[in-house]
This record gives sequence, structure tokens and C-alpha cells, in this order.
Amino acid sequence: MRKILIIGSGKSTAYLLKYLLDKALEENLFIIVGDINIKNALKLINNNKSAQAIVLNVFEKNSRQKAIKNVDIVISMLPASMHIEVAKDCILYNKHMVTASYVSPEMQALNQKAKAKKLILMNEIGVDPGIDHMSAMQVLDQIRDQGGEIILFESFTGGLVAPESDNNLWNYKFTWNPRNVVVAGQGGTAKFLQEGTYKYIPYHRLFRRTEFLEVDGFGKFEAYANRDSLKYQNIYGLEKAKTLYRGTIRRIGFSRAWNIFVTLGMTDDSYTIDNSKNMSYRDFVNAFLPYSPTDSVELKLRHALKIDQDDMVWNKLEELDIFNPNKKINLEKATPAQILEKILLDSWTLSPNDKDMLVMYHKIGYTLNKKSYQIDATMVTLGENQTYTAMAKTVGLPVAMATLAILNKKITTPGVQIPITKEVYQPILKELKNFGIVFNEKHVPYLGYNPLNI
Amino acid sequence: MRKILIIGSGKSTAYLLKYLLDKALEENLFIIVGDINIKNALKLINNNKSAQAIVLNVFEKNSRQKAIKNVDIVISMLPASMHIEVAKDCILYNKHMVTASYVSPEMQALNQKAKAKKLILMNEIGVDPGIDHMSAMQVLDQIRDQGGEIILFESFTGGLVAPESDNNLWNYKFTWNPRNVVVAGQGGTAKFLQEGTYKYIPYHRLFRRTEFLEVDGFGKFEAYANRDSLKYQNIYGLEKAKTLYRGTIRRIGFSRAWNIFVTLGMTDDSYTIDNSKNMSYRDFVNAFLPYSPTDSVELKLRHALKIDQDDMVWNKLEELDIFNPNKKINLEKATPAQILEKILLDSWTLSPNDKDMLVMYHKIGYTLNKKSYQIDATMVTLGENQTYTAMAKTVGLPVAMATLAILNKKITTPGVQIPITKEVYQPILKELKNFGIVFNEKHVPYLGYNPLNI
Repeated sequence: MRKILIIGSGKSTAYLLKYLLDKALEENLFIIVGDINIKNALKLINNNKSAQAIVLNVFEKNSRQKAIKNVDIVISMLPASMHIEVAKDCILYNKHMVTASYVSPEMQALNQKAKAKKLILMNEIGVDPGIDHMSAMQVLDQIRDQGGEIILFESFTGGLVAPESDNNLWNYKFTWNPRNVVVAGQGGTAKFLQEGTYKYIPYHRLFRRTEFLEVDGFGKFEAYANRDSLKYQNIYGLEKAKTLYRGTIRRIGFSRAWNIFVTLGMTDDSYTIDNSKNMSYRDFVNAFLPYSPTDSVELKLRHALKIDQDDMVWNKLEELDIFNPNKKINLEKATPAQILEKILLDSWTLSPNDKDMLVMYHKIGYTLNKKSYQIDATMVTLGENQTYTAMAKTVGLPVAMATLAILNKKITTPGVQIPITKEVYQPILKELKNFGIVFNEKHVPYLGYNPLNI
Repeated sequence: MRKILIIGSGKSTAYLLKYLLDKALEENLFIIVGDINIKNALKLINNNKSAQAIVLNVFEKNSRQKAIKNVDIVISMLPASMHIEVAKDCILYNKHMVTASYVSPEMQALNQKAKAKKLILMNEIGVDPGIDHMSAMQVLDQIRDQGGEIILFESFTGGLVAPESDNNLWNYKFTWNPRNVVVAGQGGTAKFLQEGTYKYIPYHRLFRRTEFLEVDGFGKFEAYANRDSLKYQNIYGLEKAKTLYRGTIRRIGFSRAWNIFVTLGMTDDSYTIDNSKNMSYRDFVNAFLPYSPTDSVELKLRHALKIDQDDMVWNKLEELDIFNPNKKINLEKATPAQILEKILLDSWTLSPNDKDMLVMYHKIGYTLNKKSYQIDATMVTLGENQTYTAMAKTVGLPVAMATLAILNKKITTPGVQIPITKEVYQPILKELKNFGIVFNEKHVPYLGYNPLNI
């Protein structure tokens, strides 16, 4: 019997656990789900005899170490900042470990110790990061194996609402952590590379510099730049690429409307508003507009941001009920971002029957025998319901598959890893197809940003 | 013989030293000017027998303590962060101390020790902070002594170029630390109070929310909000004021043009541009604009910021030569703010014959016997030349006067002080008049921000 410890039973654990339980008999697995609160774990396990829920407080050393010692491999689905103690214990007790989070400097520092003990600490193997790495590297390696040289790499991901549940003017609902959506793009200027020129976009312009994308069968999308477009340049071997851009996908029109909140200062998370508890939604909007005893909040906002009378962006604001003088914020000393999150939750929370959608788009330009080519690879995954969401599926399945592959010694390279090698991405991308997570690769004319070569 | 140690011989020491030397015989003073580099000190002393320049590295404990032990009072004209060791030594050796800087938490922490030893650590006694405190408190105390209650307090200061030297389209030159001008307003949302409502302006909107001011004989000005409009609410006793606003004065049109740099991201000081050394001014502008092989930097900028063909703001940009493809930045790994500072120094450095100007404006609204009143107090000081600037005069004179008043036991209240009591501001404001630093107080109708009381 191979024992797997999953720490954390949040949203993304649903599919992960389902996959492992479906394989439990055939693969001889026993899965222990540890969480401070085991309610969700018990619900997900649903009396399956191949699994057990245990109360686990990751900050309690003794119970944490006891749980880790007892298993063959550990999956940490905790928030990224909580992985490190688990990772240290995994090294202490000779256990492999899998996470869907970005490699932190502390995690990277464990590389030598992990290698020395032939342990695998696999990270960034969810969807973004995760499936993006694997699907991009598959195309990049194919091109390079043919002798091609990459000149353009653009990669976009977005968690959205499925078309059948897409029924508000923003074409958006929260399918993941709402807070991350509110503060998205903050913390530094976005930097990317276009035709050999570094470009910089400050946060307050980020949502006005979007690009359009189209996915067959799903229509048009837009994307705003991530902060870190150059983060994987060396890891992906893209030192010679003249264009590097990574972005976040939304439906068209979202960013232009979102920019109103950014411009007013409503997404700021760096200070608190003293009297927030008793403020109305309308008071909150008014706090970012000049004082006037004779003018309405509405006209002050239209004037400050030059919003025409017939601009549909206005209907988006009204749909959120932000001008309501009777709805109270009811949050003590909240930051503007916390208040905005609360307002948005009224409108953007998934209904019980709503489904989500995960969209990924890579554009990869290359030269081969002095000619230029481009491959566009797109993937859309739809959620099944509120438990088995597209987000839980695309995060959870690669984690589960990597865990089993490590147990079965199909993934063997030790150290702090991310899924960019054929050993990892080939079997996982192949298996993901069986679950409907399929990349549609299309050859398109290479245009780049200078199609006439001026 | 009373000995005074002045540490630091930068710009603001000129007038300070002149004042003390002029009084040296009559007041029996000997002034020691300590600096790492004594060149400027020697020039300012100009062989006067009542003064001496010494080499003083404030980070060397022995020489610092030796210099402090030897005198009766210490003036620190160092950058604010360097005062604290000097202050500790002053307490150790029973010396009074005077600075023109904001009270840091470390300085405030010395309050009890200073009081116990009956020592005065006088701070914030330059121009802003300094003359602003004194002139505001004088009007506030007058009103309160009559039984009035303050309902509005607005205070504005600006260091500008004198009208006779005002010969560029921005109506601005650097009269003080250029870096502070480039990063002005950063580091947090501006917060103020208007008619009982808290208002917030994020940095990227700060220069689009200006107010106009007019000073008799000097024409119109504009002001943008400081971050800290509420900082002195309790210190000034303005708990009941419904409007509190502090701002920085510029000539009209400056802020609207400056906002272009803010919007593009050119004032950002939080990251460096790798290839900055070989960039041209034009490349720098282009880094903040979308890539296009067919469009000029000029048209991309006009389009991105919606600048009309006949908007004078464009001439301001052209005057700075920012579109020049041949001028190199020539700064290694510089931040955008550092690069912008360099570009601006080309155009905004004072010429040898240029004079500067210091403008201060207080608006104070109050009620007395159920009627509303307003006093506007304005002050304009012009510089004499590049050494005896308005800035050096308005910073240096109050420091010098406070020092002499402490020596002469006219200022006696011990502890960490700022100049908000009658004991301090009455004699100093009176004496400043002899040097042409005069506040023009004018009764105007009280309007507030709700003149019709709606």
C-alpha cells in the first residue's frame, strides 16, 4: 500500500482527490487528507475506504511530522507561504513532495539537500503555473528538435465564467481567490519585450494596454500584461526571442471598466479607511471624488473620468450597485481593496448552477531555414459544477498525475523541479487529454509586431 | 564667548551663518562649521574671525563627540536621517540642538531625556516645516484668543523660480533637491478632509486634482495635495475643523504637464532599467509606449495620452528635448525617476543669475458669534542670488534665530519641540519681518467648499 498525504482540502483538492481515489485500487493507494477543518475533506472522501481525513495543523511540528513520516509522498495544497516547513520535513524523513505553487527562494534553497537524498520536490504543477509550462515547453521543444529558433513567445491564461453562465455585463465572476483579482497587477511595473525593445507599463495604465485574442468556438478575449513576462526567459531557453509577453485573459471590455476602479484608487490595499464600517457603497465611491455640495456622485465620476453619457462602461458600474446609498460596507477599518472585493462579491459570486472556464493561449513564433512560422496553441476547459470546477480540474489533475508518476518512478529526476522536461510533461499532457484538457495547435502566418519588417 | 556648532554646510547654511556672523560681536558668538568637505564652509566664512571651519565626519564617534562637547549649542543641517546620533550626543553632553527637519520617531523618543536635563531639541524650524507652523499658529491663536472656532485650514507652500527668472514653459526650475521634486507625492495615497468628508487621491491622479490660488502682485498659482494633510490636525488643535488640506504650490499648468510623466511611469523609482546607459532620451520615452514599427514616438505619445494637436502641454515636452534620439541617458542601471531627473536638470537648472522664490499661502476659516469668517495669509520671499536664495533664507533664518533665542534663554521650554508655541513663533516671526519675510493677512468672505450651505 502506497500512502499519499494531501495537506489542505480547499477548492483545488476536489479533482486531485477524485483522480487518486479512482486509481486507488488498481494502483494500491491510500490517501490521507489533512486539514485544520476536516469538514470539506470528509465530504470529498464520501466514505471511500481508500481514504481518511485527519485533523492537521501545519504549524504544529509534532503532528505535522508524524503525518509526513507515515506516508510515501506529500502533496501540499496549502497557500504558497506555508509549504516550506512541510518541505523541510519531507527532506528530513525522505519523502517526495508536490505543490502547485511558485518556487520560493526558500524552496529553491533546498535543491542540493533534495538532490543528495534523491528526493523530488515538484512545484508549479497546477494550471498557471503548471499546464502553461508543460504545454509551452512541448511546442518549444518540438520546434527546437526540428532546428527552429524561437523569436516570439506570448502566453496568456484566464479563469473565467463558462459561456452558459456568462450573464453579467462584465462577462466575469470570481472563479478563484477574489482578493487576487482585486489586487492583480499591483506591486511593480509590468515589463516585457516586443521586437527587441523592453516595454514598461505602470499599474495605473495596465488595464488600458490590453491585446485581443480569439479562440475558435469561444469568441474574443482580451489580455493585460503580467508583471513578470521575462521570468521564464532563461528557464524556457528563450534568450534569443525578440518578443516575450505573458498576460491574463478576460472577456473584452472587462479591463477598460476595471480601469475605473484602478484610476479612482479603489484597488489600493496599502492603507485603511477609518470609518469604513458605516460607509455606504456610495460614500466609498465619493471618497475618491472631489467634494461638491451641488453635484451628484454620478456626475462627479463621469466628469473626473470623462465617461460619456452613452458609454456602456457606465452600465457595468451600475450593475455592481456601487452608487447605492443604503448598502453598508460593514467592514471595520478596511482597505479600499477589501471594500471593493466585498462590493464585487455581491455581484460576481458563482450561483449554485454556474460553471467556470479556464482559457489558455500560447503564440509561438520561430524561424526555420530562414523562413518565419507561428504556432498558436489554445486550450479551453469548462467546469462541471461548483465542486468540480475547471480551475480545480486544471490545478488538481496535473498535481495528482505527477504524484502518481513519482510514486511509480516514471518521474525520477531529483531536486527542486518545475515541469519543463519531457520526462514530466509528455506523460502528463497525454493523460490530461483523457480528461478533456486538450491543446489545439494551429499553424498561422507569422506576423510578430512588425509584419512588414520595417 | 558662546560657541555654536553648525554641522553641514550645504545650501541652507549660507543665510544661517550670515545671520550669526552679523550678530557675532554684539552677541559674543563664535561659530564652528563642521563638514566632511570644508570648501563651501571656508567660502561662506570668508576669513571672518568669529568663525572657523573644521573637518567633521558625523559617522566618526570620537571627532563628533569632541566637536559637540566643545560648544554651547549644536545646529544640525545634515540630511534628516543623520540627526539622531548628534541628538544623542547633545543629550550626553548637555547641549541644546536645533534642526529644520521633521521629528523622526527616534528623535521623539529622546523627549523625556531632554526634559529631564532641561535641554531643548528644537526641530521643524526651517520654512516647510517651520515658517508654515509659526505663521499658521499665529493666526490660529489670534482667532482662538478672540473666542473663534476654526472650521477650515488649508496651507500651501512652494519653492519656485522668481518672476524675473521665470523664462521656461513650465514656469519652474529646481530651487532645491531635484530628486524630491521627481518623486513628490509617491509613497501613499493623499488623504484630506473637505467639509467633514475624507477624500483620497491616488498618486496617479494627484496632479490632475489641483486647486488654484492667487497672490496679490504675483498672479495665479496651483497646488496639489500633500500626502499628510491631517498630520498636524491634533498638534494645531484642529480637531473640529471640517476642512483640512495641505498642498504644494506650482505655477498654473505645471501639474497637468507633469502628469504626463506620472501617467507614463517615468517617475517610478522602484526598479532599474538595465540598458539605461546607452538609451537616448527618445528611447526612454518609447519604453513606456506600445511597440510600433510604423508610428513615431511622438504620435504614440499623443495617442496614448489623448493630447490634442494644439495643446500647449506638448510644447512643454518639446522644450525638455525628450524626443531627442541623440542625447544619451549615460546613467548605469538607473531608475526611471533618476533618468527623468537627469533630463530635467538639462532644462531646469538655475542659471548663475537666476533667482528663486518661496511662496506660502494659508486659508483659515472660522466662526465667531455664529458668523463665519476667513483670513488668508500669504508670504512671498525672493532670492538674492544663487547663494542667498529664498530657500536658504527661509530655511536658515528661523534656525539661526531660534539658536540665538535658546542661547539667550528667550526660548526655554525643554524637550523635543516644534515651533508652535507663542514663546517661539512670536519673536521669530517679528524678527523675520526685518528680513522681508512678511505675511500679508487679509480678511476675505468665508466660502468654504459649500458656500450656499446646501
